[in-house]
Amino acid sequence: MSLLAVGSVALDSVETPFGRREDVLGGSATYFSTCASFFGPVRLVAVVGEDFPEAHLDFLRGRGVDLAGLARAPGRTFRWKGRYEFDLNQAHTLETQLNVFADFRPELPEAWRDSRHVFLGNIDPDLQRRVLDQVRGPRFVACDTMNYWIETKRASLLETLRRVDMLFVNDAEARELAGEANVVKAARAILGFGPRAVVVKRGEYGALFFSGGEVFAASAYPLAAVFDPTGAGDSFAGGFMGYLARSGGDDHAGMRRAIVLGGVLASFVVEQFSLDRLRTLTHDEIRARYGEFRQLTRFDDLELDILNGPRS
Amino acid sequence: MSLLAVGSVALDSVETPFGRREDVLGGSATYFSTCASFFGPVRLVAVVGEDFPEAHLDFLRGRGVDLAGLARAPGRTFRWKGRYEFDLNQAHTLETQLNVFADFRPELPEAWRDSRHVFLGNIDPDLQRRVLDQVRGPRFVACDTMNYWIETKRASLLETLRRVDMLFVNDAEARELAGEANVVKAARAILGFGPRAVVVKRGEYGALFFSGGEVFAASAYPLAAVFDPTGAGDSFAGGFMGYLARSGGDDHAGMRRAIVLGGVLASFVVEQFSLDRLRTLTHDEIRARYGEFRQLTRFDDLELDILNGPRS
Repeated sequence: MSLLAVGSVALDSVETPFGRREDVLGGSATYFSTCASFFGPVRLVAVVGEDFPEAHLDFLRGRGVDLAGLARAPGRTFRWKGRYEFDLNQAHTLETQLNVFADFRPELPEAWRDSRHVFLGNIDPDLQRRVLDQVRGPRFVACDTMNYWIETKRASLLETLRRVDMLFVNDAEARELAGEANVVKAARAILGFGPRAVVVKRGEYGALFFSGGEVFAASAYPLAAVFDPTGAGDSFAGGFMGYLARSGGDDHAGMRRAIVLGGVLASFVVEQFSLDRLRTLTHDEIRARYGEFRQLTRFDDLELDILNGPRS
Repeated sequence: MSLLAVGSVALDSVETPFGRREDVLGGSATYFSTCASFFGPVRLVAVVGEDFPEAHLDFLRGRGVDLAGLARAPGRTFRWKGRYEFDLNQAHTLETQLNVFADFRPELPEAWRDSRHVFLGNIDPDLQRRVLDQVRGPRFVACDTMNYWIETKRASLLETLRRVDMLFVNDAEARELAGEANVVKAARAILGFGPRAVVVKRGEYGALFFSGGEVFAASAYPLAAVFDPTGAGDSFAGGFMGYLARSGGDDHAGMRRAIVLGGVLASFVVEQFSLDRLRTLTHDEIRARYGEFRQLTRFDDLELDILNGPRS
């Protein structure tokens, strides 16, 4: 597999009802590539500052993340500071320091231009296309975005959307992008913008997948203890794309498995702060939780006669 | 089957982004018993005023709802007036006129004391127990409640909960009742109050079922057009209890089918104002949508070797 990811690598300071952490490993591309690495090697395009701890790079390398596309620039690493109240679905951003990320111009090593699967993390849509321009005929391109780009760079975002196979958005973003309150109608409108598939992420409620006439509703795993929801969406995308790149297929049945695996990875990530849970996560645990998702959502066909009889 | 339901029969005035209706048929017991009637006869205990249109009674009788327990009292029928904004998950109550419902004292016809399945709609928990006191050894009792009773009659509600098999609540109610922000922990706390099963309704996101160590996550059907969400929760309960009473079983596999059928009935009800969609709904449509729920949520086992190989 040759899976390329571009996005942020950051140092996060996070406060939840269960504790706080300062300057821990974070960033959309970090969560994405670490989760995807459970399926095979990942090529990471990002930038960090001079202050970025070598230990974090060692961790990523140890997970099979190729850092040949990771630039180290003069200055400080991108920093995000956020707080979650008891409603863990909602992140409150306290501070964003772009630092070296402000001048990020993604450059792919020559050898990576053959990447077959590409994930364009939540960055300026101009830069997303800049990455695409450097890849020769990728097989499957997915992208993420956020309300900021929808509001400030809509035309550019729409141009990116015409060139991707799949968009990951949350429900508020889907509604805003499509200008449509109903999430089903919003997803269909987005399919009209270019992508052949849309995943609408709904936090603790799961995700909806739309492609052509196909709809798949994936439940999230009901967790008794969520410690830190940071990175859940990127972990979802990482599990999804990691599986897709590894399996090589992109039929609907495979997409469904990929979505469930996205939910599996996200369900682990939120169990601890930062990427800590991924440091100990095993393939057996992933496989077991996939089975629990099956058990969680499975139900039988209806008995043939149950609606007949006296009142049929 | 002998399924008894107690609750409100009302005249609703509803405004949604898609239109408005004045003094249309409504009430928790109305939605419940009409939905349950697709599985067999229902015994309805409620009260209406002198102004309640005979045509509505004819409709209920026509659906196999036995009205021997429906009192007609001097005065006006219970009225509810509400509005939904674009977020159709949230009802804004504009006015509640209890009218004859203020003095409602449910009385069961003698012949109904043998009822095997009982649904205690969202009424004063004192009255819920008053109904239970009149039933001899029911097989399965479910109840609904709301924040008002949780806040004003907690002790009485807890007394009712000790006598029921299942509680239907939405997620906010579950959190409030249990005093616990996490919905999984809240559901487990409620199981400690007495019921052996809890269904947490989550509107357009579906429902979670908890019983012992069992958890079932049911997705809602993603609808492109929701016209009026009024009665969705009671319709869910009606589909659930109707199926349970009809099938006679209460194993977990049966409970799962019942929950999906609850979702099926709710998904139809919201497609039109009031109970209008139920006037034309057929068994074939119910069966077909159940199949669509299966298709919507189904995914395969993971390939055995997908997590092995280079990085396993």
